[in-house]
Amino acid sequence: MEFKVLKDILSANDQIAEENHELLDNNKVFAINVMSSPGSGKTSTILQTIKGLKGKVKIAVIEGDVSSSIDAEKISKEGILALQINTGGECHLDANMLNRAINNLPLADIDLLFIENVGNLICTAEFQLGMHKNLVISSTAEGDDKPLKYPLMFTVADVVLINKMDLSPYLNFDANAYKNAVKALNQRAEIFEISCTTGQGVDDWLAWIKKQMDVE
Amino acid sequence: MEFKVLKDILSANDQIAEENHELLDNNKVFAINVMSSPGSGKTSTILQTIKGLKGKVKIAVIEGDVSSSIDAEKISKEGILALQINTGGECHLDANMLNRAINNLPLADIDLLFIENVGNLICTAEFQLGMHKNLVISSTAEGDDKPLKYPLMFTVADVVLINKMDLSPYLNFDANAYKNAVKALNQRAEIFEISCTTGQGVDDWLAWIKKQMDVE
Repeated sequence: MEFKVLKDILSANDQIAEENHELLDNNKVFAINVMSSPGSGKTSTILQTIKGLKGKVKIAVIEGDVSSSIDAEKISKEGILALQINTGGECHLDANMLNRAINNLPLADIDLLFIENVGNLICTAEFQLGMHKNLVISSTAEGDDKPLKYPLMFTVADVVLINKMDLSPYLNFDANAYKNAVKALNQRAEIFEISCTTGQGVDDWLAWIKKQMDVE
Repeated sequence: MEFKVLKDILSANDQIAEENHELLDNNKVFAINVMSSPGSGKTSTILQTIKGLKGKVKIAVIEGDVSSSIDAEKISKEGILALQINTGGECHLDANMLNRAINNLPLADIDLLFIENVGNLICTAEFQLGMHKNLVISSTAEGDDKPLKYPLMFTVADVVLINKMDLSPYLNFDANAYKNAVKALNQRAEIFEISCTTGQGVDDWLAWIKKQMDVE
């Protein structure tokens, strides 16, 4: 009985996710769902991407947080439209929250939409939102065993960033062990090593986005 | 209707948590529920504590993970009893999982029991387990805004460790801002700055545990 209820909720979510996808496609908006542990660098990555694509692509950001609007304020300071969703305790965004948010955006004026999901390496991976790609970010400081311990997240990833590479000289982070663990779960996902602090590797990440969006 | 179901589940959980608490008390076991984001240093902190209390206190560890037994293996290598709970996708431990685990431990031979919860800064805080204290760990690499963004976790904390202090020279981590944010939510929690890599501050943390357990 309980399982049935859960299944119905998930089906309803997936149906709204499909609506979201259609709405974005109709408006030619490319949307990326950004997921990670708390503090891996979701906002920093979005800020680096905004800087790198300025003048080429019109960007907007939906910020998902349990509480506060700290990240939306950081994005707004860059002159970028940021819409805050406070989940009020919920540990993930769902398709319905996204549907309401998307319907409040000027979609005709947006080329690239980032959804910064709640910081959570488990629950966020369970809910389809209807976006085009799932970006998963790990920080080197979290250790190289995260794909082994949180496999679903790395299974649903389309692209993976290893952030905070500037800290790796001070850590026992084995980038090859991490990459092999991701590949064992998911052959499809591309993996880039970056540092949002030094800018290392950010160009490769920007090239990936430009390729997806067919932008020079 | 849905709210009622959730309330019933939570009440059932709290009732089992009380049973767990009684069982531990009857066996004179002091139990700490360890919570943090993925990769903040839960296992490293437990390993440092094992090292610091060797010969003084009999320790056992229950490891909660979505998947894998990596951490239980690390603990076992130190000659410490480690019991692995794999939640099979669930994002937190609950009182019932703990009840089954505790009933499989030789409680008469244990003074101090660590519960390493699933790496999750949201959901784990919502479930009472019946342990004596909640330890919350943050890593400096996660940034100093975590208490503002994940307030419930810091509200339920009895003690907070800021781990990876050895990385702070390479980060913009403001320890005072972090501490003030914790104190705004929770006047009760003591806060210690440590590094499990260099051992910095670990003695203060060990002194806190010894005081709780009335051990020299």
